[in-house]
Order: sequence, then C-alpha cells, then structure tokens
Amino acid sequence: MITILKADATKQQRDNLIQWFESQGLKVHISKGEFQTVLGLVGDTSRVDESLVEALEIVERVTRVTESYKAANRKFHPEDTVVEVGDVKIGGGGFAMIAGPCSVESEAQILEIARSVKASGASLLRGGAFKPRTSPYDFQGMRAEGLELLLEAKEATGMPIVTEIMNADHLPLFENVDVIQIGARNMQNFELLKAVGRTNKAILLKRGLANTLKELLMSAEYIMSEGNENVILCERGIRTFETYTRNTLDLSAIPALREKTHLPIVIDPSHATGRASLVEPMALAAAAAGADGIMIEVHNNPEQALCDGAQSLTPAQFDRLAKRVLKVREAIL
Amino acid sequence: MITILKADATKQQRDNLIQWFESQGLKVHISKGEFQTVLGLVGDTSRVDESLVEALEIVERVTRVTESYKAANRKFHPEDTVVEVGDVKIGGGGFAMIAGPCSVESEAQILEIARSVKASGASLLRGGAFKPRTSPYDFQGMRAEGLELLLEAKEATGMPIVTEIMNADHLPLFENVDVIQIGARNMQNFELLKAVGRTNKAILLKRGLANTLKELLMSAEYIMSEGNENVILCERGIRTFETYTRNTLDLSAIPALREKTHLPIVIDPSHATGRASLVEPMALAAAAAGADGIMIEVHNNPEQALCDGAQSLTPAQFDRLAKRVLKVREAIL
Amino acid sequence: MITILKADATKQQRDNLIQWFESQGLKVHISKGEFQTVLGLVGDTSRVDESLVEALEIVERVTRVTESYKAANRKFHPEDTVVEVGDVKIGGGGFAMIAGPCSVESEAQILEIARSVKASGASLLRGGAFKPRTSPYDFQGMRAEGLELLLEAKEATGMPIVTEIMNADHLPLFENVDVIQIGARNMQNFELLKAVGRTNKAILLKRGLANTLKELLMSAEYIMSEGNENVILCERGIRTFETYTRNTLDLSAIPALREKTHLPIVIDPSHATGRASLVEPMALAAAAAGADGIMIEVHNNPEQALCDGAQSLTPAQFDRLAKRVLKVREAIL
Amino acid sequence: MITILKADATKQQRDNLIQWFESQGLKVHISKGEFQTVLGLVGDTSRVDESLVEALEIVERVTRVTESYKAANRKFHPEDTVVEVGDVKIGGGGFAMIAGPCSVESEAQILEIARSVKASGASLLRGGAFKPRTSPYDFQGMRAEGLELLLEAKEATGMPIVTEIMNADHLPLFENVDVIQIGARNMQNFELLKAVGRTNKAILLKRGLANTLKELLMSAEYIMSEGNENVILCERGIRTFETYTRNTLDLSAIPALREKTHLPIVIDPSHATGRASLVEPMALAAAAAGADGIMIEVHNNPEQALCDGAQSLTPAQFDRLAKRVLKVREAIL
Repeated sequence: MITILKADATKQQRDNLIQWFESQGLKVHISKGEFQTVLGLVGDTSRVDESLVEALEIVERVTRVTESYKAANRKFHPEDTVVEVGDVKIGGGGFAMIAGPCSVESEAQILEIARSVKASGASLLRGGAFKPRTSPYDFQGMRAEGLELLLEAKEATGMPIVTEIMNADHLPLFENVDVIQIGARNMQNFELLKAVGRTNKAILLKRGLANTLKELLMSAEYIMSEGNENVILCERGIRTFETYTRNTLDLSAIPALREKTHLPIVIDPSHATGRASLVEPMALAAAAAGADGIMIEVHNNPEQALCDGAQSLTPAQFDRLAKRVLKVREAIL
Repeated sequence: MITILKADATKQQRDNLIQWFESQGLKVHISKGEFQTVLGLVGDTSRVDESLVEALEIVERVTRVTESYKAANRKFHPEDTVVEVGDVKIGGGGFAMIAGPCSVESEAQILEIARSVKASGASLLRGGAFKPRTSPYDFQGMRAEGLELLLEAKEATGMPIVTEIMNADHLPLFENVDVIQIGARNMQNFELLKAVGRTNKAILLKRGLANTLKELLMSAEYIMSEGNENVILCERGIRTFETYTRNTLDLSAIPALREKTHLPIVIDPSHATGRASLVEPMALAAAAAGADGIMIEVHNNPEQALCDGAQSLTPAQFDRLAKRVLKVREAIL
Repeated sequence: MITILKADATKQQRDNLIQWFESQGLKVHISKGEFQTVLGLVGDTSRVDESLVEALEIVERVTRVTESYKAANRKFHPEDTVVEVGDVKIGGGGFAMIAGPCSVESEAQILEIARSVKASGASLLRGGAFKPRTSPYDFQGMRAEGLELLLEAKEATGMPIVTEIMNADHLPLFENVDVIQIGARNMQNFELLKAVGRTNKAILLKRGLANTLKELLMSAEYIMSEGNENVILCERGIRTFETYTRNTLDLSAIPALREKTHLPIVIDPSHATGRASLVEPMALAAAAAGADGIMIEVHNNPEQALCDGAQSLTPAQFDRLAKRVLKVREAIL
Repeated sequence: MITILKADATKQQRDNLIQWFESQGLKVHISKGEFQTVLGLVGDTSRVDESLVEALEIVERVTRVTESYKAANRKFHPEDTVVEVGDVKIGGGGFAMIAGPCSVESEAQILEIARSVKASGASLLRGGAFKPRTSPYDFQGMRAEGLELLLEAKEATGMPIVTEIMNADHLPLFENVDVIQIGARNMQNFELLKAVGRTNKAILLKRGLANTLKELLMSAEYIMSEGNENVILCERGIRTFETYTRNTLDLSAIPALREKTHLPIVIDPSHATGRASLVEPMALAAAAAGADGIMIEVHNNPEQALCDGAQSLTPAQFDRLAKRVLKVREAIL
C-alpha cells in the first residue's frame, strides 16, 4: 500500500502517522520528493481500511499494490478452481452448458424443457422459482412449489439444477439444489452472501448491474471467507447509457477476471442482451473469449413465457447454439 | 398501454392477441398505419407484464402511458405525504435535518455528536450500527451493541433516530428505532422491502447506485403495497464514469420525483460526494432545489472515524452548514 | 410515428396539432383511450423533428416506429454493403484484418511493422499520423510527415492504408489514403462528417465513447447524405463505471447493428480494452460474434511505443491472433 | 509521479528504467518493499507520457501526484480568474446571467427575446446560429444569417452575445461575437480548441457528455496553451443510465472544479435536464452551490421553437427564475 502525503504535512503529523502504521505491524518506507512524501507500507495491509487512511487531512491519496481479496486471488492460488457439480466440472477446462426457462411455470413445462436441453447437450438445468421483479405487481415466481417441480425435473433427467435464492430463511428449501444462484440485485446483500458462505453448495454469483470486477471479487470473498470456496462468477451485463440492449454484456470480464482470480467464469447472454436474436452471437463470443460456461434461457413457448420471454430461445434455437458453441471451443483449443 | 405490432403480423396473430388482451378485461383500440398497427389498451394495465407482451413475435414495441406504480403515484394522491417522526414532520413543507456519524463507535462518541448536532439544529440523529461494507475484512459496525448506544443517545437527547437494517431477521432489534433505513445496495432486496412494509415504521429508502427514478418508485411500491405508507425517498448519488467524486449526486431527482410522487425526498450529499469539502455546497443546492431534508455525516473526530471519515464534517462545519441551509430555504419560500 | 397526447389536451389543441401534421403531408389516425389520445402518423415522418413535437404542451410522449436514418437503414437496403478497398472486400462475407502501430514513428518502424503484419495475414495497414490526445503536452503524431511515411509503406507492401483525419482542411493530404478514419471524439463533429461525405473515400467511422448505436447510425447518415456510401462502422469500447479496462467493449453491437444496418462492422479491441493481454480474447470473440473485421495495434517494440503502448501486441502475438481468428471464423461458417 | 514496479522486475530492467527517467531530467527516489519497488519521480513530469510508462512490462501502475494541466491549475494560479465581457465580469464574485433562445429563428424573435431577458436581468444574450444536430435531417440553424441577426440584437440592446462555433473556418464570421461557445460534442475537437486558442475572445467551453472533469480541464489547457486564457467552463449534464432527464446535471462539478482551477464555472440546466419544469430548481441549486453564472433557454413561444423547445422557459418563467436566483445568491453571501 502506497500512501502519498500532501506537500504541507508537518513533520509531527507525518511521524504520528508512521507510528500508527507501525503499531499495526507494518514496516514503513519513506520516499521524500520535492512536492510530496510517499510512504510505502510493507506487511499485511489487507485489514487496513483505505478510506480511513484517505480521510486523514495530511493524506493526498492511497494506492493499493496488493488487492484486498485473498481467497479469490490468483496470486495466492495460481491454479484454476474446478467446481464440481454432480459429474459436471466447471473451470480448469470444464465447460458448463446451463439451460432452462426463466421461470418454472408447470410440471409439464419444466420437464419438457429439461429433456429437450439435455438432448441438445446442456449439462445443468436452470429455472427460477423465486423471482426478483422490479414491480410488486409482476409475477413473483412459483416459489416453494416451483422448487419442487425443479427437483422433480432433476430426478427425471439426472441434471443438476441451478436456481436463485432471495432470502437466507429459504435455505432449508434449497437442500437438494445443486447450484444456488445469487442474483445481480443481491450481489451486495452481504447478509445473504455470508449465509450461503456457511453452506457447502456451489454458488453462482452474478455481477451486479453497476458493480466493478473488483467488487464482484470482494463479494466472492464474503462467501469464501465463511468457508465455502465453491464460487462460480457470472457476468450478465452491466448498466450503461445504451438502450438498444437491456444491458451491455462485458465480455472483457472473462480474460480480465481470469488474470485476477482462479474461480470459474460463466456468461449469461440472455439477461444481458434481453433479445433472443442477440443470444447466439454473444454465446459464441463468450466461448471464443474463453468462458467456463454459458447460461441460456430456453422456453418451449417463448411467446407465452411468464417472464423475460423476449430473450428466450426455442429448443431448436438452443440446439443450434449448443452445436456452434462446441465448434468455437474446438477452434480455440 | 400502447402496443405497436410489426408490419408482417398476420390478421390471425393480431386477432389472437386482441382476444387475449380482452380476456384480461382490457378494451383494445386499433389504429392501422401504412407500416404498422397500433393497439391502444384501455383499463387497468398495471398488472399486464410488459416484457411478456414485448416477447411476442408480432410485437415491435410496448409503451406505457400510465405508470405501473399506484400507491406512490402523485396522479392518484395529489397531496404531499407528510411522514411524522416524533415531533418532526418530513414533507409538505416540513424539513428534516438528519445528522450523525457514519458508524456508532462508542457511547461517548455518539452522545457527544448527538448533543452537538442537536444544538446546531439537527432534528434527527443518524448513525450506523449494521454497516454494509464492500470488503468482508472492513469494519462491519458494532451491530446490536451499536443499536443499544443509539437508543441511549435517543433517550439522552430526545432525538428520533435513523439507522440501517440489513437483514429482516434483525427487525425485533429495531423496535424502538424511529426511521429504518434501507441502504442503496438493498434497494432491490425485495424480501427486505416486503418485511419492512409489514411494519409501521418510517422507512428511509435510498436509491441504488445504478437505479432509475422509476425503479426507486417501484421499490417504494413494494413497501407500500404491504401496507406501510411512511416512505421517505433518499437520493445519495449514482454511479457514473466520473471518478473525482465517489458518486454523482443527481439533484434533478428532487424536482423530477416531486412531479411523479407525493413522497418526501431527502438528499445525502456526504455519501454522494465522498469528500467533506463538497458536502456544504451540495447541501445548499439540495435545499435550493426543494428537498424535504438532508442527511449529513458529522464526526467529532473525522480523521479517526472508523469508516467514511473522508466525507464527515466536524461539528463546527455542520453548524455553519445548518445555518446556511436555513437561509437558502428562506430565500426560496 | 406515434404521438401520445396528455389527458387534459382540449379538442381545439388536438385539432390544431392534427392540422399541422396534415400540412406536413402526413395522414393522422386517431385512437382515443380513457386516459389519453394517441395519434398515429403515416407517411414520411423522417423530417419531423421529434423534439419539436415533444415540446408541445399537450404532448405526453413521441415514439418513432420507423427510424430517422434512411440511407444506412437495412429496411430500405436489405443486402449487406461491401466496401472495397484495393483488392480487399469488407462486409458481405469479406473480412478486414487491419493492423499496425498506434502512431507512425519513423520510416524503419512503419516499414518493419507493415511487412510483418502482412506476412501474418493482415490485409490493411493502420497507423496514426494526426493523433488526438487528451493533453496538449502529449505527443501529437508526426502529422504530414507521418502520412508520407504511411504512403511509403503502402507503396512498399501494396497494403491499403487506414489513418485518422482531425481537420477537414487536411483533406488534400489524404488524397492517396485508402480508408479515412473518423475518431471516436469526432463522431459528432458534424462539419467533418459532411466534409468526408463529399469525398469518395472509404470512411471508417468510430463510435463515440458515450454514443448510442442509433447516434452512430445517424452520424453514418451525415456522411451518406452527402453522397458517400462507403462507410464502415467501428465499435471501440464505450465509457462505463468499470475502471479495470480502459473502456467496455460492446460486442453486442455487432449483431445489433447487423439487424439495423447494411454497413460493415469492424471491432477495435486494442483501444477498447487498453491492455495487450485482453486483445486476443476480444478479437476471437469479435470474430465469433460475426464482425466484418478487426483492427489491432501492433508494434515492433511495444514498450517504447510513443503512444498507447500498453495495448500493442508484438508481431509474434499478432501472428498467433491472426491464425486463431481465422480458425474461429471457420468454426462459425 | 509514482511508478510502481512489478515484483518480478529484474535489477537490470529496473536500472534501465531509472536511467531513462534520469535522461529526461528527472530525479528518481527508490523505495523497495517486500512485494514491489516504487520509484518516485521528482522534476517536471508534465511531459512524461503516462501511458508510455504504463506500457512497460515491468510497470504495475503509474500514479500522478501533480496534475498534467498547468495553465488551468489553481495550484499555480491561486486567484480566481475574472473573464470580462463588455461590462460583465464572470468569476471572482461576478455572476453571468445568460439567456436566450436555443436557435435564432428570425429578427423579430431574437429582438423580442433579447429585450425581454434584459429587462429581467440577463447580462448576456445566447442564441444558436450554427446548430449541431444528431440527425442530418433536423434543422441545422440559420448559420451565417443567424449570426447577423444576433449581432443586430446585440446592437439594439447592448448585450454581449454568446454563440456556438462548429468549424474553425467560420472564425472570421465570429469577429464581433463576444463569447464563442465550444459545444459538448466538440469538447475534444482538439483542432477547433487550438484555433479558438489563437483568438483573444472569451471561450465558453462545455463539458462533453461523457467527459471527466480532468478531461474538461485538459481541453481548457489546449485553448490556454495557445495563448488565450479567457476560458469559462460550463457543466451541462453528463450521460448516465437515467432516462427521465435528458442528461444528469452534475452540480458537484462546481465545488470540485473550484478546488482544481481558477477558471469561472457556468451551469446550463436547460440542456442538462431537457425539461422546462426542472430548469428553475436546478438554476437555484447551481446558484446555491456557488456557480459563476447560469445559461438558460428562453423562448417567446416555446411550443413552436425550432429546436429543444421542451426545455425552454417563457419570458415570464425566466423573470421569476432570475429574481429567485438573486435571492439565493444573497442567502449564501
């Protein structure tokens, strides 16, 4: 950590600060310039509160050299983490093809879609039971009943399931869920992160609409610091000024996160674009950029989907997408 | 609600859609153009799921004419809502001067600050007990103990208190809290919104970092639709590309929300700017733009504040700010 | 065009507006709802100024059904435009591999890089002579002299060249340039757009940092409406809150623009990401998403490049990238 | 300037870099930490290209301690600059009330508005002759003829005039214009900045829609480094995800720029909000935050304004605004 002092800091102020750093067990290297003094801190600075130091009147700026995330940091864990879900390996070369409807709507619907996407090569089944919706008047999901139907589909097809949790109190209902999803709006619901961190489930953590990659990693750190290291990161579009797509899919997050962390990275082009016609090109692009998986909304009847139908593919469209994604993956081997 | 159909929609498809709308109890007015057909829907469209309709292959676009929020909508409730907290009236001409530290740190600290800001004219005391922090390694607040100290300060000074909740399970601890704050990161934690909607407390709802005014109103609607109409909206800066300030304070939210809703609107310039030197000018601007209150971080020793010290004012700075804010309020009467 | 009137518009006001629309040669279809009246305008609305209509006190909102760009619009020109530059075809299946240094620095430099990227399969040579720089104190390019060196490299290698213009007064210097680039900062320099629209050169138009796809198309329209239809669109990253990458590369622009326009679409991952290590994954992703070309910064000595070295590839890195991009293109055929 | 080296930099690499810095006339202070080495550069680093240094393989990060703008920097010019235009002083306590129509439309229009806003207290007359419009099919202004009419209004009322230039070739037409405006879309049209920098006119430089305060200051620096120090900065809203207002007015730019620069700061609430009903509250807020002037669109017939009518005030509305702004200014004295 580098602390740049203001030009007008007095010797007394400077010495007080240095003493305080040393009292935290840090070594302090001093470099005096014409316009400023720079303090280089050596030791475990991860618990030093940056904003606290920046608050000091004599401090011009603070720059971290080492990141404040440890468990998620590739520096301290150079090998790729492989999250195993049933027979499926995600990360380290293993690719997750996750597909299913936005919402579970009925037994017939979820079973039909599950069988269909499995036949096309999907390895995990997704489906929303608890649905976060902007309006209290929109369909909120089938909730516990939807979870039951998902578990039936899991039993019928053998596919592990991925579904979102919105409330830590619902955890007992998720006992047989394979991958628990934390939605974008809850990425910084720290109480929920800690709660799923105390389970041993795989957690699919979606990037918030306006969260940086660093914040995403800090949220992963919340889960991991409670003991659960089975975290899968998911980019699903960020909020920008562009209005043609629902959000802007940030595919550069794939190689950027790859450098920073050992955790697997999955892309959700359906929510990001909000338009069915853009999903396949973005899925192919995600595969080309090295994603560890993709998450695709598929509905047997997109035009009647109870939510987000605009972005759902038909089973036939998904079949084509899945085949082409595999070809792109081969091309970049 | 206006539904614009694609040029190539067949008569059969169009008739099916019209029938479906009619089955929802809506009247449908048809306007055929050279390039498109437009359906105007009349009746209660608030429960029609926009994304569902936009998903239909024959639909080009959907435009709402009436907003999907009802309880918060000024159209259906033309008079300003006045939220009463103890003797303090917020909205409808009543102005809330809310001040206090970012975090409660000790009995001595909170009592000293409370007395000081009260003497300068603050009407409510703020202080964080449960703190949402980006990093799991940063100070998380004194939690239940902090709440106790806040309640002591309330008793000692008679000031109603405002403090943040992060978990619905903590509600019993908030029994004697006057205003429960929902933080920006939880603005779309719908389960928490519903939980506080089932209380009769005043709720201070902060706008999320990347949420539109419409989404803020929809989140207020979540609280109100559970029966609690004591909602105070709070603008605290949005995330933009600018990095000089922590966030960009959107003061146009004041007159914009004023047109849309009857709920009171409070501004938090401390979190928005993240810099003590910008707090007073932005507080004066908020008052000039017609805010119903301001929320200011004050610390007796900002340089040693355990969090967000960079943006805290000293009691003397707050005293000057409070006097000047009143002068600006008089100027715009 | 749909014009939604406010509920309180009087019959007199409505009739006046309808008359005015009719005087512009439009037919007006009226649909009266319980809360509002909707006017559907049929005819050539491309010259109706949306903001003018929205300004009227009785108007609630205006929605365009047909876009205001004509020449660039795929609706009126369903086939892909193929821009031909020397032997290179861009669009309609033709792929442009554009490579070269950020800035031309010397004869030796540009010749060496040109030969090297040609050997790796590049079809066009890029190089900056006039450089737009945020600071007046940064290197501004070799200007006219740099242009000379580029033309020498063209002669030596036979590669057509792409280079940026910043001032219409410089056009005579660009007589032998094959593709004139309009930089992101000049995307809405309308005087410059009109000037290059009066030439018959191929124009590479870069999307502005905060411009929507619609605005990009309107800027293409400025060029095309002056008679020059040889426009190539270029996505090079947009400005968002994320700071890890220089900008956020919006790859969904490829399929989105594909639907809207017949013009070819090229991706510049070097400027978008600002980091050499992210360039190859993003180039592969662009190819997978169906781009008509990529534009890559290559420098024989990136560490000493006079500008933007951080994002330049070495010739060896470019060679690997070029081969892999071709493989991905084959995979999606 | 601080240069942080990567942990794996060899001694040889480090020594080479240090030598290179020294060859630029800089002194280098070295601070070795456990994980990194930090070089502190002392001397005139304003001409060191940050991106060049960051490009080096051994460099982790570069941090500037002193800003790269000099002429605009308050550090080197502590007193407020006062730009004088006729009898009007802008900055250092002098306040500019600038008003007029978006576009000059006719002699009668501009004369009537000029007289009216002067009577209400406006000190400068604004009016667009050359209009930058997103679409080539929208009204482009009366151009040279509009300039003539503005000059007539100046003569008739004695008010200095402010109007936008879009092309350096038009400069001769601007000989009698008092304040030349550089529009937001041209904020980084560096050729135009340099051209107006070679005049001795007052220049009103508008912040670009997606430009940081630092970039705004760098653009001011382009003008000033050519010899013209009469620069007025203008905040007119930035582009964000919010769609209710046209742009988001960043009023914190006032105190933030005040700290950084000695140049006067003017606010344009009309373009920022795009809604007449929000203009007065934002003008009052600007005054409360300490702006050196405001720029307001006024039209005698906003509903028929040829552009941007939605945001124009009537003369009566402006009269009320002007009186209230003065009251707020008195309140904060």
